[in-house]
Amino acid sequence: MFHPFGKLYQLTTFGESHGAALGGIITGCPANQLLDLEEIQYELSRRKPGQSSIVTQRKEADEVEFLSGIFEGKTTGTPIGFIIRNQNQKSQDYSHNVDAFRPSHADFTYYKKYGIRDYRGGGRSSARETANWVVGGAVAKQMLPQISIQAYVSSVGEIFLEKPYQALDLMKTEENIVRCPDENTAQQMIDYIKQVRKEGDTVGGTVTCVIKNAPVGWGEPVFDKLHARLGQAMLSINAVKGFEYGSGFCGSKMRGSEHNDLFNPDGTTQTNLSGGVQGGISNGMDIYFRVAFKPVATLMQTQLTINQKGEKVEMQGKGRHDPCVVPRAVPIVEALSAMVLLDFKLIHQAFQ
Amino acid sequence: MFHPFGKLYQLTTFGESHGAALGGIITGCPANQLLDLEEIQYELSRRKPGQSSIVTQRKEADEVEFLSGIFEGKTTGTPIGFIIRNQNQKSQDYSHNVDAFRPSHADFTYYKKYGIRDYRGGGRSSARETANWVVGGAVAKQMLPQISIQAYVSSVGEIFLEKPYQALDLMKTEENIVRCPDENTAQQMIDYIKQVRKEGDTVGGTVTCVIKNAPVGWGEPVFDKLHARLGQAMLSINAVKGFEYGSGFCGSKMRGSEHNDLFNPDGTTQTNLSGGVQGGISNGMDIYFRVAFKPVATLMQTQLTINQKGEKVEMQGKGRHDPCVVPRAVPIVEALSAMVLLDFKLIHQAFQ
Amino acid sequence: MFHPFGKLYQLTTFGESHGAALGGIITGCPANQLLDLEEIQYELSRRKPGQSSIVTQRKEADEVEFLSGIFEGKTTGTPIGFIIRNQNQKSQDYSHNVDAFRPSHADFTYYKKYGIRDYRGGGRSSARETANWVVGGAVAKQMLPQISIQAYVSSVGEIFLEKPYQALDLMKTEENIVRCPDENTAQQMIDYIKQVRKEGDTVGGTVTCVIKNAPVGWGEPVFDKLHARLGQAMLSINAVKGFEYGSGFCGSKMRGSEHNDLFNPDGTTQTNLSGGVQGGISNGMDIYFRVAFKPVATLMQTQLTINQKGEKVEMQGKGRHDPCVVPRAVPIVEALSAMVLLDFKLIHQAFQ
Amino acid sequence: MFHPFGKLYQLTTFGESHGAALGGIITGCPANQLLDLEEIQYELSRRKPGQSSIVTQRKEADEVEFLSGIFEGKTTGTPIGFIIRNQNQKSQDYSHNVDAFRPSHADFTYYKKYGIRDYRGGGRSSARETANWVVGGAVAKQMLPQISIQAYVSSVGEIFLEKPYQALDLMKTEENIVRCPDENTAQQMIDYIKQVRKEGDTVGGTVTCVIKNAPVGWGEPVFDKLHARLGQAMLSINAVKGFEYGSGFCGSKMRGSEHNDLFNPDGTTQTNLSGGVQGGISNGMDIYFRVAFKPVATLMQTQLTINQKGEKVEMQGKGRHDPCVVPRAVPIVEALSAMVLLDFKLIHQAFQ
Repeated sequence: MFHPFGKLYQLTTFGESHGAALGGIITGCPANQLLDLEEIQYELSRRKPGQSSIVTQRKEADEVEFLSGIFEGKTTGTPIGFIIRNQNQKSQDYSHNVDAFRPSHADFTYYKKYGIRDYRGGGRSSARETANWVVGGAVAKQMLPQISIQAYVSSVGEIFLEKPYQALDLMKTEENIVRCPDENTAQQMIDYIKQVRKEGDTVGGTVTCVIKNAPVGWGEPVFDKLHARLGQAMLSINAVKGFEYGSGFCGSKMRGSEHNDLFNPDGTTQTNLSGGVQGGISNGMDIYFRVAFKPVATLMQTQLTINQKGEKVEMQGKGRHDPCVVPRAVPIVEALSAMVLLDFKLIHQAFQ
Repeated sequence: MFHPFGKLYQLTTFGESHGAALGGIITGCPANQLLDLEEIQYELSRRKPGQSSIVTQRKEADEVEFLSGIFEGKTTGTPIGFIIRNQNQKSQDYSHNVDAFRPSHADFTYYKKYGIRDYRGGGRSSARETANWVVGGAVAKQMLPQISIQAYVSSVGEIFLEKPYQALDLMKTEENIVRCPDENTAQQMIDYIKQVRKEGDTVGGTVTCVIKNAPVGWGEPVFDKLHARLGQAMLSINAVKGFEYGSGFCGSKMRGSEHNDLFNPDGTTQTNLSGGVQGGISNGMDIYFRVAFKPVATLMQTQLTINQKGEKVEMQGKGRHDPCVVPRAVPIVEALSAMVLLDFKLIHQAFQ
Repeated sequence: MFHPFGKLYQLTTFGESHGAALGGIITGCPANQLLDLEEIQYELSRRKPGQSSIVTQRKEADEVEFLSGIFEGKTTGTPIGFIIRNQNQKSQDYSHNVDAFRPSHADFTYYKKYGIRDYRGGGRSSARETANWVVGGAVAKQMLPQISIQAYVSSVGEIFLEKPYQALDLMKTEENIVRCPDENTAQQMIDYIKQVRKEGDTVGGTVTCVIKNAPVGWGEPVFDKLHARLGQAMLSINAVKGFEYGSGFCGSKMRGSEHNDLFNPDGTTQTNLSGGVQGGISNGMDIYFRVAFKPVATLMQTQLTINQKGEKVEMQGKGRHDPCVVPRAVPIVEALSAMVLLDFKLIHQAFQ
Repeated sequence: MFHPFGKLYQLTTFGESHGAALGGIITGCPANQLLDLEEIQYELSRRKPGQSSIVTQRKEADEVEFLSGIFEGKTTGTPIGFIIRNQNQKSQDYSHNVDAFRPSHADFTYYKKYGIRDYRGGGRSSARETANWVVGGAVAKQMLPQISIQAYVSSVGEIFLEKPYQALDLMKTEENIVRCPDENTAQQMIDYIKQVRKEGDTVGGTVTCVIKNAPVGWGEPVFDKLHARLGQAMLSINAVKGFEYGSGFCGSKMRGSEHNDLFNPDGTTQTNLSGGVQGGISNGMDIYFRVAFKPVATLMQTQLTINQKGEKVEMQGKGRHDPCVVPRAVPIVEALSAMVLLDFKLIHQAFQ
C-alpha cells in the first residue's frame, strides 16, 4: 500500500532502481504561479550520483520531464505529472544478487512480504526514489519564497561540526563536496570518506536542517504536529535511524528551569530549545532538527550471507555505491522539509 | 484539522484538560473478538495521575465508558465510541493563566493560530489527551495477543540505565513507581525526581520500547515505513523531542562493516543494529526504539513571561504537575506502538 | 472500517440503535466562531422520531451533549465531541428478530460480514445514525451563513409535486408535517401516508434539495467533484436508491442544442440544466438535486423469512417504524449538503 | 486538490487533453500476480477515439507504457506507474476557444477557480482523463478473475432498451458499435446518432452495468457503502447527471410490501430490487445500476457565448467530438466498477 506524502500538497511516486523510469504526481500545488524548471533541475543535480569524487559513480543524468499541470510557464492547479528516465541501469553489476539477500538491505523483507522482488537492485527500496522527492520539494520551495530551508552535514562518523548553526554561514554549505559549511571540518570529513571508500567500507553521519521565517501557526495539534510530520518524513529517507528537533536527546537530560524558553515582549523567545515548535505548531522562531544516517549497507568487501533457500553464500562487493550518504542527503532533507511546510501552510490557510 | 491516527485501525479523539470529557472513536477493530474491559481500565490506571508520589497529584478516576461497538462482550466490527469524564477540573488552580502565556507551553501558538484558547489549562494541548490513546492502544493490544510490547524508563536526567534491553528482565518494570526494570537504577531515579520536585523543578528522561514476536512483513515501503510511523506516533506525545530506533544516533558514527547485521540460515540476524526493521518492513527480529522527553514546562517556581498584550507578567507556579513525565509515559508509548502494529497487521492482511 | 465524512471538515461517528448512545467528533470546524446550540437542537428536533402522526412513534428526546471544542460559546478550532443518549431502547419490541433476518434489511449482510450482529435492532445500520449527521450539518450550516440549503419532499409514492422549485415558496416547507411546500400536494401526501400506515405497509418517495448563493469555484476536479461528493453523501442515507442533479435522468433524453446553458454577460446562465455545477465545480447558479428513497423495509404485516440456520420463519410486524421516511429525511439531506459545502469551501480557501 | 481514487487499491492520475501525456500511479495492487498487458491495451481500444463511425474521429493510439511495478510479467506489490502520450493534439482546432467560454463546459469554472486555464481544450476537465481510469480498471479486473462486470448502452435519447438485463445476452454487447446487446435496438440507436451528428447536434443516453459473482460482505457501513462509492465513481465521469441502483427512482414509487426481497433458504433472494446491496454491503446477488449521461456540450453548430471580458462572442462549432458519449462510456463504467470492487475486496480481507 502507498499513501501519498502530504494532505493537501501531495506527492505520489513510483519507480525502481532498475526500472524504465521514476516519476510522480504532485497535487495541490497552488495555481497560476510561475515555476522555474531550471531551479528544479538544479536541485536534482545536487542529489544526483556522480556529482563528486566522494559519492557513487553511477551515471544518471536525472533529467526530469514534466508532463502536465504547467501551461505557459505557470502552474494550472491541476496535477503535475513528471518522469525521470533511468539511463544507466547496468544490470550486470547486480547479477550476483539474483538469489542472495544483501545484509542490512531490504531484499529479505521485500521478498518475504511480496513473494517476489526485482533482484537487479534495491527495486522500490532503492534511494533512487528520493529523486522524486527532490522534484516535489523543489516545486514546494518555489511556493514558499519567503522561507529559507538550509540543511548541511553536521557529522561524518566521529567527525562532528561542533558549532551550533547560529555560528555558521550556511551559504557556504555548497562550497565543498561534503556540504559542511565549516571549511576545516569539511576537509576532515572529505579525507575520512575517501579513506573509508579506499577500504571498501562505508560510514554514517548526520544532517542538520534549519528553517527560517516560518510564521507562527503552522502545524496541527495532536496527530499532525509539525515536528512529528517532519520526523516521519526524515525517517522515510533510506538509512535514517534517528530524528531529534530543538534540544532533542540532550533535552532529556535537562531540568525545566534550564530548558524553558522565556518570552520577549514581541512573542519571540530568549532561547530556542523548543526548536521553533510548541505543541506541534510553529512559534515563529527558527525550526531546526537533526537526522542520523547509518552507514550504507553495500560494501566493497566480501560478506557472508544467505540466499532464498537459506543456504550460506559469499557475496562479492561490486557496483558503484556511496561510501557515505550524507552529502547527497542534504537536498533530500530540504526537499522533504519544503513539502511538509507547504502542506501545513495550505492547511492553515484553509481555516482562515 | 485533525487526521485520524492510523489507516485501517483508526483512533479519532476529542477532549481538553478542563472540558467535560475526553473520548474517542476506534474504527477498524476486528469483529467478533472478546474484549476484556478490565484490562483496558488497568492500562488507564498505569497512566493516570495520582498513582504514586512522583507523579502529579491531580485526582482523576479516568474511568472509561464504552458507548458502542461492543455487544455481549465482543467487538461487532462497528465503531467503538468511548468517553472519559473529567472529574477534577479545579479551574481555580489555573486562574493565574487567564491572560499569560506559560513559557515552553502551547498557550502562545494555540492563541496565535486560533485566536482563542481555553485559558483554564492546556486545553487540547494537554497530555490528558493521552488517556484516549491508552484506550485505543489497550484495545489494539488485545487484538495482538501473540506480540509483546514492553516499554520502560531508560533514563531520568543524567541517570541512565546502561544495560541493553537484552540484559534486563522487563517483567520487573511495573515493580517500582518509576518503571525502570533495574532496581538500583530505579531507586536513584526515584530519589532524583523527589529532589527535583522539592526544588519546584522538573526533569526530562527517555523511554525505551521493545516489541517481540512481530512477524516478517509488517510496514509499507517509502512513506509508511514501520519505523517512520512509530516515530511520528512517539513525536506526537507531549514533550517528546527525539526518536531513534535500532542503532539510532550511535549508528551514525559507525562503519558499514561493523553495522551490517549478518544473516543466520533461518533468516534471523546475528546482530540487530537494524532494530527489527529493514526498508520500513519488520524482519522478524526484536523491534526496539528510544524516545526522548524534555523536562515538563510547568514549574513550581516563579517565572517571568508575557500576556496577550505583550506585557511582562510574573507567573507563579501552582497546581499539581508531574516533576518528570517518563514514568507515566511508559503505557502511552506502549499504547501507540500497539495501534501502529495492529494497523500494519491489517494493511498486510488486506493484500494476502 | 470507517472513513471520516469529509476531508477538512470531518465528521466521525459511532452508535447503534440499541446501544447506550450515539455520538461523533467534528474536526476542522473554523475557530473563534459563535455556535448557537439551540439551533443545533432545533435541527435535531426536525429529524427526531415522534414529531408528528406520520412518522415513527419511538420516543427519543435526541438531546445532544457537547463535550469539547467549544469555550465560552465559541468554537476553539479543536475537535467537537458530542453524544446523544439512547433513551427508549425497548429491546422487547425487537425480540422476535434475535435469530431471523428481516427482508431487505442489513441483518443478513452484517451477520455474514462480521460473524456477529446486535440482533436487538438495526445496530449500526439503523437510521438513528443520521442524528449524528444532523449535528454535524447543523454546525456546518452555521459556518455558511450566506448560503441557503433547503430540501423538501417532492414525491410520496406516485404523488408528485410537479412544479419546479423556482415556482415554490420554500419557506413553506416546514408548515406541514410531510414537508412539502405546496399545500395541496402536501395534504394528498399526508392522507396517502396515513392510509399506507393503516394497511401496515410503507411507501417510498423523493426529496429535492436547492442550494442558493454558493460562490463560483467550490468542488475539485476529477475525483472530488462537488456533485459526486453530494451524490455519495446522499447515497449514504438509509433507503436511498438514486441521485440526480440538474437535468438528471431526463437530461439523458435531450439533445445538446436544447441542453446547453447559454451564458449571460455576467457569467450567469440563461438556463440551469447543469444544476449549478460544471466540471465538478460550482458555477454560481443554484445547485439542485433529487434523491430517491425506497419504501421502508419494516412492515406491520407478517412476512416469511429465514433465520441464521437457513430455516424458514414467520416474522410478525412489530415495533414503531416510519411508514414513509421522506419527511424526516429532509433535515438529513440538508445536513449532509451543508457538510459537503463547508468541506469544499475550506479546501478552496486552502489554495487562495 | 486531488484525492486518490480508492482507499487500498488507489489510482492517482494526471494529464490534460492537450498536454504531453496522461498517466497515473496504481498503488495497492496485490503482488506476485501475472498481468496481461495486451488485455489492458484491449480495454483502452474499447474506449479510444476513432474506433467507429459514431464516435469522435480524433486520432490517438492510446498506447500505455508501464514504467514500474511489474517485473518478469508479474506485479511486485509496488506502485505501477504508467503514461499514455498524447499524439494528436492539433491545437489549431481549438484556437477559437482561446478567449471564449464554451457553454456547459468547465472552461468558466476552471478559469474562475484557478485564474488560469489551458485554453487549447478541456485541459484537466477533458474526458481524455478517463483513459487513465481504463488502465486502472483493466489491472483491477485481472485481480478479480471470478467476477464479471458487464456494462452496456441501455438508452440513447428517447430510444430505450426496454428488456431487463436478465433477458439479454450481455456477450453480444461488443458485437455492434453502439454497445447495446439487443441487435434491433442497437441499430435504431446507431441510426439516430448518425442523424444527430449530421445535424451538428449531440444526444444523451444511459449505461447499465451488471456485476455478477461478487461475494457477500464487500462494502463498508455508513460512509463507504458499496453503492455510494459506485455512485461517486460514476458521477465522476464527464457528463454524468444521475445514478440509480436496484429499483432506483422507480423504487421511490413503490410500497414496502412490493419492494421487499424475500429470502430463499440459501440466503439468496427471490427478487432483487435491492440491486445486490443491503446496508451498503454486497449480499451475493447481482449488483446492477444505471448511469445517466447528458448530451455532449460541444456542438458543430454556431453558439453565442461570452469571453473572459464578459463580451458576447460567436462560437463556431469545430473539431472532432462525440455526437453521443455512451458507446465509449461502457468500458469506463466497467473500469471504475472494477476498481471500487477490488478496493472493497482488499478492505474486507484486511479484517479477516
